[in-house]
Amino acid sequence: MTPLHTIADLAQPALHQRLQHRIDHKTKPLGALGQLEALGLQLGLILGSEAPQLDQPQMVVFAGDHGLAARGVSAYPSDVTWQMVENFLAGGAAVSVLARQHGLALTVVDAGVAKDIPARAGLQLRKVAPGTADCTQGPAMTEAQCAQALAHGAEVIRSLPGNAVLLGEMGIGNTSSAALLMARLTGQPLAQCVGRGTGVDDAGLARKLAVLDAALQRHADVQAPLAVLAALGGFEIAMMVGAVLQAAAERRVIVVDGFIATSAVLVAHALQPLVLQRCVFAHQSDESGHARMLAHLGAQPLLHLGLRLGEGSGAALAWPLLVSACRILQDMASFEAAGVSTAQ
Amino acid sequence: MTPLHTIADLAQPALHQRLQHRIDHKTKPLGALGQLEALGLQLGLILGSEAPQLDQPQMVVFAGDHGLAARGVSAYPSDVTWQMVENFLAGGAAVSVLARQHGLALTVVDAGVAKDIPARAGLQLRKVAPGTADCTQGPAMTEAQCAQALAHGAEVIRSLPGNAVLLGEMGIGNTSSAALLMARLTGQPLAQCVGRGTGVDDAGLARKLAVLDAALQRHADVQAPLAVLAALGGFEIAMMVGAVLQAAAERRVIVVDGFIATSAVLVAHALQPLVLQRCVFAHQSDESGHARMLAHLGAQPLLHLGLRLGEGSGAALAWPLLVSACRILQDMASFEAAGVSTAQ
Repeated sequence: MTPLHTIADLAQPALHQRLQHRIDHKTKPLGALGQLEALGLQLGLILGSEAPQLDQPQMVVFAGDHGLAARGVSAYPSDVTWQMVENFLAGGAAVSVLARQHGLALTVVDAGVAKDIPARAGLQLRKVAPGTADCTQGPAMTEAQCAQALAHGAEVIRSLPGNAVLLGEMGIGNTSSAALLMARLTGQPLAQCVGRGTGVDDAGLARKLAVLDAALQRHADVQAPLAVLAALGGFEIAMMVGAVLQAAAERRVIVVDGFIATSAVLVAHALQPLVLQRCVFAHQSDESGHARMLAHLGAQPLLHLGLRLGEGSGAALAWPLLVSACRILQDMASFEAAGVSTAQ
Repeated sequence: MTPLHTIADLAQPALHQRLQHRIDHKTKPLGALGQLEALGLQLGLILGSEAPQLDQPQMVVFAGDHGLAARGVSAYPSDVTWQMVENFLAGGAAVSVLARQHGLALTVVDAGVAKDIPARAGLQLRKVAPGTADCTQGPAMTEAQCAQALAHGAEVIRSLPGNAVLLGEMGIGNTSSAALLMARLTGQPLAQCVGRGTGVDDAGLARKLAVLDAALQRHADVQAPLAVLAALGGFEIAMMVGAVLQAAAERRVIVVDGFIATSAVLVAHALQPLVLQRCVFAHQSDESGHARMLAHLGAQPLLHLGLRLGEGSGAALAWPLLVSACRILQDMASFEAAGVSTAQ
């Protein structure tokens, strides 16, 4: 099963040294390209090259519904999940627009949307069930469903070409699921993990917190990462976990979007810590728990633009920075080649 | 003369309201695209359209040398200025690579490089003098030279097509000049304005601070913005001031790079505060005074990547975000058009 894939350690001291040497001899003061230098180094190590090239990047948006949504944890009705899937496929959503801008192939995955979505190009039908169960009453999904979602996530990655994937999601109620995973897997107080999602008001936030507290208490004894995922997760999150593990095993670059995509990495990291070597964290969401979740993973996000949309929108916006990091490694002149004097 | 151009107020309440309505009805929660929404609004107001389109963006890198460099304020020798101009033109510098990536036309301007640079395509020869004078001994430039630099900056903009300019610079010693302009025009203590530039060590930083303190004392009575620019500025900075004023008068979008480009905006703002309506601040530099300089202008930079290179590199990296903001206004579906339910 996917989680048992062994993820290789990408520490490659000789390549690391060659990459750092290459970066340090480019025509700029040492370190002057800041985070872009660390990014270039990481991409070189993932792709095993001093001059890494990103190839056929794939934006994959996993969609699923949540039993918890019936408890009033979101500002939007569950129907928005399938409506937004249609919007992604019609090209009208933020992620559709941004994917076109940056030449990212867009695949939408029905991981567990409540409504049946007609098959068409750009859509993968991998529905485990029409939405998860209400996790205040029992586990969100069975162990078998969780295993199926993980396997489907891996299959989605295997079905796509290229050496980079950008992970996005859609699912009314899924900031709740991500907050629950965060609370249980990081041990942080629930109030530090829960935010306004798509924009609940103060009363809505209090209700959300009470519902999620009940869910955590219902599963107080569940601690193992996969059991936590089954008890509190969503189908789109579980499928992203499978996608992260598979992409990591294949040494693809994994561009992680916001709060919910990061919660999938949190689970994958609990299973296989080395997945983090392959993850580029695109942005820090305005969703209040995301900064703490990233800090828990020791992640340095690229963008801080106050986004809180999901869909992979932040990953798409950060994409040109990855391209820049590669082009700098490939095309920028060295002091020697350009005949530029070095520091005195 | 350029600074006397009156810059029109771009406050357009009816257009503002239409833009905000358009943004708020896109298929996303209110405000969920964060800073990208404010950026789209600003670009719409600058370009006078509900669906602004960026046209033929121009990256302009102004280069000049500094008399102060002989005082040992930089980690690099002055020769690096002309060597980097050659590198820009040969396509090997960071800004060359990034401009190619994003389809930005690149123009390099010899504003006052110490060495003569042979004419060629992509280079504008606008040299006022082969470097400024040492401003610890007298003004960096005469009033006439300052006026000439401003006029040349305006001419550079007039010579270029398109509705957006990205401003970059090169000049060994120019973080010193920018820090002096900041100290005098904002009234902040010199130590809060001075940083390590291209990377001076602790002893170098102490020397830089002492030299700059002497320069400020030498011109203690100079307060008027243009006189401050002549006393403490550089030719590339003065030319950028002229470029900012001209681009603002033409309602072009002005993408401002780092510490030195922002110091030119600081001067332009002191002359014509409304230039700020046209300025998009690309990034917050790692140069220590830049965060305070941006705060003084009330500016919200787009990127925080720890860059400290100049050249327009940060402006180039931020460029795709401007394109995204426009595409979202143009191409993203509304709730009504996409048949998506709104918040409950």
